[in-house]
Amino acid sequence: MIIIGEKINGSIPRVGSAIAQKDADWIAHLAKAQTDAGADYIDVCASVEESIETDTLAWLIDVVQQATDLPICVDSPSVRTCVEALPFCKKPGIVNSVSMEGNKIDTVFPVIADTAWGCVALLCDEKGIPTTVERRLEVFERIMKKAEEYQIDPSRLYIDPLAVSLSTDSGALSMFTEATSAIKAKYPSIHITSGLSNISFGLPARKLINQAFIVLAMNAGMDSAILDPTSRELLGLLYAAKALLGDDEYCMEFISAYRQGRIGPLAKA
Amino acid sequence: MIIIGEKINGSIPRVGSAIAQKDADWIAHLAKAQTDAGADYIDVCASVEESIETDTLAWLIDVVQQATDLPICVDSPSVRTCVEALPFCKKPGIVNSVSMEGNKIDTVFPVIADTAWGCVALLCDEKGIPTTVERRLEVFERIMKKAEEYQIDPSRLYIDPLAVSLSTDSGALSMFTEATSAIKAKYPSIHITSGLSNISFGLPARKLINQAFIVLAMNAGMDSAILDPTSRELLGLLYAAKALLGDDEYCMEFISAYRQGRIGPLAKA
Repeated sequence: MIIIGEKINGSIPRVGSAIAQKDADWIAHLAKAQTDAGADYIDVCASVEESIETDTLAWLIDVVQQATDLPICVDSPSVRTCVEALPFCKKPGIVNSVSMEGNKIDTVFPVIADTAWGCVALLCDEKGIPTTVERRLEVFERIMKKAEEYQIDPSRLYIDPLAVSLSTDSGALSMFTEATSAIKAKYPSIHITSGLSNISFGLPARKLINQAFIVLAMNAGMDSAILDPTSRELLGLLYAAKALLGDDEYCMEFISAYRQGRIGPLAKA
Repeated sequence: MIIIGEKINGSIPRVGSAIAQKDADWIAHLAKAQTDAGADYIDVCASVEESIETDTLAWLIDVVQQATDLPICVDSPSVRTCVEALPFCKKPGIVNSVSMEGNKIDTVFPVIADTAWGCVALLCDEKGIPTTVERRLEVFERIMKKAEEYQIDPSRLYIDPLAVSLSTDSGALSMFTEATSAIKAKYPSIHITSGLSNISFGLPARKLINQAFIVLAMNAGMDSAILDPTSRELLGLLYAAKALLGDDEYCMEFISAYRQGRIGPLAKA
């Protein structure tokens, strides 16, 4: 599993204040905590108005890179901003995200074409999120055509099939898993990723839905997620699912995460 | 999901002492707590020497039936004892368990043939637990032949495909889920059940493995489990998985379990 740590996001009130006050210590703390918890990438999302977004990302990325060696997942609703922020990164990371909406792909793909950057691609377009698996897979095929055009290998793509809210659509999981299985069958080296919060939108005890979702999505072939790696219960279920799905020989990763104190019951003080 | 509450089991030290001391209050407390948590059956296992097992079960069953209206799951390694204990039960429950070992089935099936009793059947025989899915399904077919002989409808059977320890067999889950899918495809009305602890035997942080296992087993078609319904996290994941798997319209059961305070974060005192 490729874990993209989600905690440095200006839409989280405590992080938004840290950004407004240029509180580098708090940002560095979040970067370190996610690194220690086992993140593979640190997502960085400023959530500020567009006029100051690139400058804010420059500062955030600088702070994060002083705190950790992990690569950055550059996160912005504006692909123009994403592209402007790439040069601030010391090593290739992931652009978060493109879709078939507008000129997003034609803005990002030419810039990352001859690099090692990855890219999250959402299965939606200018008409929004397709309501059937078939139409999501059509969007996927259009993305893959663009990837081929710009010679971006499938292994650099993180496809997000888009989970909708279970409270309003009882087929939210099956839509996600069916798209995931179809995509992985066709492109085994491609990555499937997801944010974990959409599926539980509008429900109480959202963590339970998110936890069960990650287990079922991994079963369908999801091999990446944008999540809070410092959430012990979530990370524990992730390692448990990996072991159960036969992807952790002799449960060595599970046992090792436990021994490092990253999952399982906390030792009593 | 049909939940068989596992807490009244003499092999649990606190319960063993309560049985030895005929502490009816503690047994009644466990029966009530599991009823309130949402159990459908109360498993009753004496775990005492065979000479006093039937008398002990008579006492336990009496105490449980005074505490709750739920039916009993009569649990003993001895099918002879199970059969002797059935008359103590006010209403039909479940016999736990038979297998193709020895004369277990021929002892139990004739007794429950013309009743509404259910029966747990383990996919093993005198040679132990088969190490391949194919051989487990062979044991299953032999069980179904016996069920047909005694005219026991598949809907009265709780098949336990037997999860082995993941720490020594990385295929433990796939063996379970493949057997489950094959059985459910052939007999849609049959129940699939499992104890949750074997799969995590020998591992640390066992609850995490058990929790991820129940979600993945439900995905494969398991519709019953022998578990501790007072474990909030486990029960919460069970309801979450049910909703995600499209078996809980508008998440009404999930929301209702939350509103009743049975799952989700505990309100702060």
